[in-house]
Amino acid sequence: MLVRSEFDIQFHLPSQAAMVAMLHLHPSLERYTQQGNVLIIEHLDDGVAPNSGERIWAKEFIDSFGNRCSRFVAPAGLLRLSSTSVIDIEGEPDPMDESARQVPVEELPDEVLQFLLPSRYCQVDLFQSIALELFAGTHPGWPRAVAIRDWVHQHVQFDYMAARVTKTAMDVFNERVGVCRDFQHLAVTLSRCQNIPARYVTGQLGDIRWPYSGPGDFSAWYEVWLDGRWWTMDARHNQPRVGRVLMATGRDAADVAITTSFGEATLRHFWVESNEVDMDGNILINTDLALRGDAA
Amino acid sequence: MLVRSEFDIQFHLPSQAAMVAMLHLHPSLERYTQQGNVLIIEHLDDGVAPNSGERIWAKEFIDSFGNRCSRFVAPAGLLRLSSTSVIDIEGEPDPMDESARQVPVEELPDEVLQFLLPSRYCQVDLFQSIALELFAGTHPGWPRAVAIRDWVHQHVQFDYMAARVTKTAMDVFNERVGVCRDFQHLAVTLSRCQNIPARYVTGQLGDIRWPYSGPGDFSAWYEVWLDGRWWTMDARHNQPRVGRVLMATGRDAADVAITTSFGEATLRHFWVESNEVDMDGNILINTDLALRGDAA
Amino acid sequence: MLVRSEFDIQFHLPSQAAMVAMLHLHPSLERYTQQGNVLIIEHLDDGVAPNSGERIWAKEFIDSFGNRCSRFVAPAGLLRLSSTSVIDIEGEPDPMDESARQVPVEELPDEVLQFLLPSRYCQVDLFQSIALELFAGTHPGWPRAVAIRDWVHQHVQFDYMAARVTKTAMDVFNERVGVCRDFQHLAVTLSRCQNIPARYVTGQLGDIRWPYSGPGDFSAWYEVWLDGRWWTMDARHNQPRVGRVLMATGRDAADVAITTSFGEATLRHFWVESNEVDMDGNILINTDLALRGDAA
Amino acid sequence: MLVRSEFDIQFHLPSQAAMVAMLHLHPSLERYTQQGNVLIIEHLDDGVAPNSGERIWAKEFIDSFGNRCSRFVAPAGLLRLSSTSVIDIEGEPDPMDESARQVPVEELPDEVLQFLLPSRYCQVDLFQSIALELFAGTHPGWPRAVAIRDWVHQHVQFDYMAARVTKTAMDVFNERVGVCRDFQHLAVTLSRCQNIPARYVTGQLGDIRWPYSGPGDFSAWYEVWLDGRWWTMDARHNQPRVGRVLMATGRDAADVAITTSFGEATLRHFWVESNEVDMDGNILINTDLALRGDAA
Repeated sequence: MLVRSEFDIQFHLPSQAAMVAMLHLHPSLERYTQQGNVLIIEHLDDGVAPNSGERIWAKEFIDSFGNRCSRFVAPAGLLRLSSTSVIDIEGEPDPMDESARQVPVEELPDEVLQFLLPSRYCQVDLFQSIALELFAGTHPGWPRAVAIRDWVHQHVQFDYMAARVTKTAMDVFNERVGVCRDFQHLAVTLSRCQNIPARYVTGQLGDIRWPYSGPGDFSAWYEVWLDGRWWTMDARHNQPRVGRVLMATGRDAADVAITTSFGEATLRHFWVESNEVDMDGNILINTDLALRGDAA
Repeated sequence: MLVRSEFDIQFHLPSQAAMVAMLHLHPSLERYTQQGNVLIIEHLDDGVAPNSGERIWAKEFIDSFGNRCSRFVAPAGLLRLSSTSVIDIEGEPDPMDESARQVPVEELPDEVLQFLLPSRYCQVDLFQSIALELFAGTHPGWPRAVAIRDWVHQHVQFDYMAARVTKTAMDVFNERVGVCRDFQHLAVTLSRCQNIPARYVTGQLGDIRWPYSGPGDFSAWYEVWLDGRWWTMDARHNQPRVGRVLMATGRDAADVAITTSFGEATLRHFWVESNEVDMDGNILINTDLALRGDAA
Repeated sequence: MLVRSEFDIQFHLPSQAAMVAMLHLHPSLERYTQQGNVLIIEHLDDGVAPNSGERIWAKEFIDSFGNRCSRFVAPAGLLRLSSTSVIDIEGEPDPMDESARQVPVEELPDEVLQFLLPSRYCQVDLFQSIALELFAGTHPGWPRAVAIRDWVHQHVQFDYMAARVTKTAMDVFNERVGVCRDFQHLAVTLSRCQNIPARYVTGQLGDIRWPYSGPGDFSAWYEVWLDGRWWTMDARHNQPRVGRVLMATGRDAADVAITTSFGEATLRHFWVESNEVDMDGNILINTDLALRGDAA
Repeated sequence: MLVRSEFDIQFHLPSQAAMVAMLHLHPSLERYTQQGNVLIIEHLDDGVAPNSGERIWAKEFIDSFGNRCSRFVAPAGLLRLSSTSVIDIEGEPDPMDESARQVPVEELPDEVLQFLLPSRYCQVDLFQSIALELFAGTHPGWPRAVAIRDWVHQHVQFDYMAARVTKTAMDVFNERVGVCRDFQHLAVTLSRCQNIPARYVTGQLGDIRWPYSGPGDFSAWYEVWLDGRWWTMDARHNQPRVGRVLMATGRDAADVAITTSFGEATLRHFWVESNEVDMDGNILINTDLALRGDAA
């Protein structure tokens, strides 16, 4: 299936600042990319139309997790980051395998071991006893990984107003409310406590083949390592979904911020969309699903 | 100068567990290594003499920070990790350069950028305003880096009893007491808030050319990136020292634990020493300094 | 001056729950009360007009801080709490006395001592060193109390979206954003660390003789004990104000919640207003101030 | 039975400081007191024998929880607080009643309601969901109160080294290690979340009719309100005990610190003992129990 992912994000900077963006498609998706995947960075004057601002050139690098990062110096004033990509990805829902076995720690690949460690928002060291008590009765491997994901989904409420940049997995466990990032941080932490390697993912997930759910946004989900590979998990939506577009993976949100500004930057505009399209670029909407949305 | 670093650490495991150890000298020191740097891992029966237990073989790998790591499966019972290394390192105190300039973020090497981010024990996001207020009056670069190190040294008390595995930089800032790890975590965090890349270091630092200070231990210090290179800093001792033997570097203690056990393991024995030696292996003690220790 | 304070708050309860409300005027204001100060508690059916619902009777008591509390059992369904009071208070701004001396701990009244202790949202034990460092250079008494209030006002941003029930003074110190409750918690904590007794206050503070600032709400401020009496302080507004109507005082927000429900209760309607009125009940608006508001 | 409670606590103060002590027997025990209950406060010179130092006179008051508090100004130098009391208390173990019913919130006495609220070390607001999940399956009243006490006893390890003044119930829940204060804070918090009023208690509990367990100390336990009265609970020892000597009750340890110093004070000497005695003051030791201690 063809997916078109687009965004237009604008910041105002009172003075020049270095920035890092992780807004490209993930390098693993490059061979499926049909169009775009170019990050356009512009310095806008107020009266300037999109794509006609002064272009700012970024230097790119691959971080230690394999993500494509862009570095640049943004001048004072209005900054616009935008991109449109079309990608041909498999139209299948997130794969599942109830027989996927838990890999003993000693058999994990070297580079996977780090995804068992505590990180900024995933305080594995604080949750050892909690995770043991909650999931002791589950079977290792796929059933345990899913039990963790389901538990988080059922015990945390979604609320856009409950987001904050300092919010940790322990905060989520206590407050039981958050945004997608928070659901995944808690699930990642509990998985690691059970010796299931888990990493945090950012990407785009529109309402593809799914009822309309409101204005678009970037999304977060996570992956667990079972039976020799990474599997997509999503403690917020908790449904196999179609059309996830991977952007970056890391230990938690600290590693894969969409943008990091080393200086003040105020968000002024935020538009993100991801849609299934046909060969001519027309957006496909599944009428049945739209109806299902009405009924929900 | 020749330094001999030795340790003998023993754990009791109630059942088999996978372990990871970061107990070798740092790869950057290999060319200066004259003897040893072999990690001996043994399964001891109670009556077995050192070095005569059943040998356990480890697999080695280099992690994303460039550290040499050993993985192995420890059987139930008594486990001994030991090593003796002799290394020929420069006999100069930690280098200093008061003119070392702060590198603007946009000029930092790609791989150094990650040492500005928040990590498990270094909650950069919580300290932004605090760090700004404390060090706004200092000059960027070396003076600011040193002001941070000095501030931590002067405002935190050392107390072996105040250690705990979950202790963060914010805990240290509030409680003002800790062990060497805690001093460095707070200094690392405050440095990053000021856009000075900072990384956490584990190693050995005996009382070489220094008054006797008690039984040996591994040590922690940190490094800041200024003027195109890493500089050693130590917020606990806060004195240029001779004879540091580097073992591992990372974002914080979560990345460079001496040993990580994926299963229960109780420390039973702990002996660490690092001494200056002559060509014949005799330990050199500086009498003047020993006297100075008496006088202190 | 005459002030009319009114509110209409409605909750939906899925099932019966015990509740405690602290919605009366403070007992110290009783002799100035001209009308009302009756808390009307009603069980509303959807089609029922205000004041015509089934009346619920509350039992009253005075808590250990001297506040008037109402206890009742709210049935499942819609609950309405409302009141209108007219009170004749002094039309002077919050009193100030730059010479008010700090009372040595040994001379404090017994019942004031508790306002030096840590409490749920005011973690005095975590701020000892911080407070000492920030305010060591100030003069004890009024100047120090004001320095604390000013510091909080200048270093914390107001944002309605940044409220949460679990937010502590330390969270405010780290995040530097909050609502009025958060400003006061941080100021109360820092005052106590300096041995200035401080207590948290809830009440009503409309835009009396002040430019319009948006829909009404209850407010929080705090009081410090200097020179033998309590003085009003307000780290959010940080301006002497006219027309504060006191409702309750305690160690922090945990002691003086407007309503506490021992069971689920969802806020459905919230209207609070406090205005200066004339003898006939007409609201007085100061045109000059309204203009000043426009200019601001 | 007769119990003799004694202590001798010494601090060094670098400069004069106001202090508050809560070291008397609880006022409710006055009528059972046979000897002593006099708090002797002395300023010691180094060469001065106990009870011959300069006597410091304290002012007493009863706090809002009904505890007897002593206020005084301690001069710079060595301070000694000591007392010996003999009290005739019931020789029965802590009462139990498995049929004690949970009192609905609406029927609780007014003054008991405050023991449902969050306090400094008992963050009821953070534990709502946790407590619900852990104890949803238990029966209200005595069974639920005991299930909470047992759970804490079984899931927290005792370790003298794990004490710290800032440690909260949430820290205990995460770290699973602590001293008696920590066990009780967690149990108090979980009880309140279940609408069981719970208050923190300090007192003395020697090894009366119990195997020797080491040098004496003050102790903490807690009380829950069920069926119209307070019941003693002890999540650390979790055994009905004989010979508890009550000193103070409050919302948590912040309310009932043995001593609070408003200025620096370093503990220099600490001796506490509580023993069963005969009419002549001879200590009674139960040989059977001593043996049981050996066997344990």
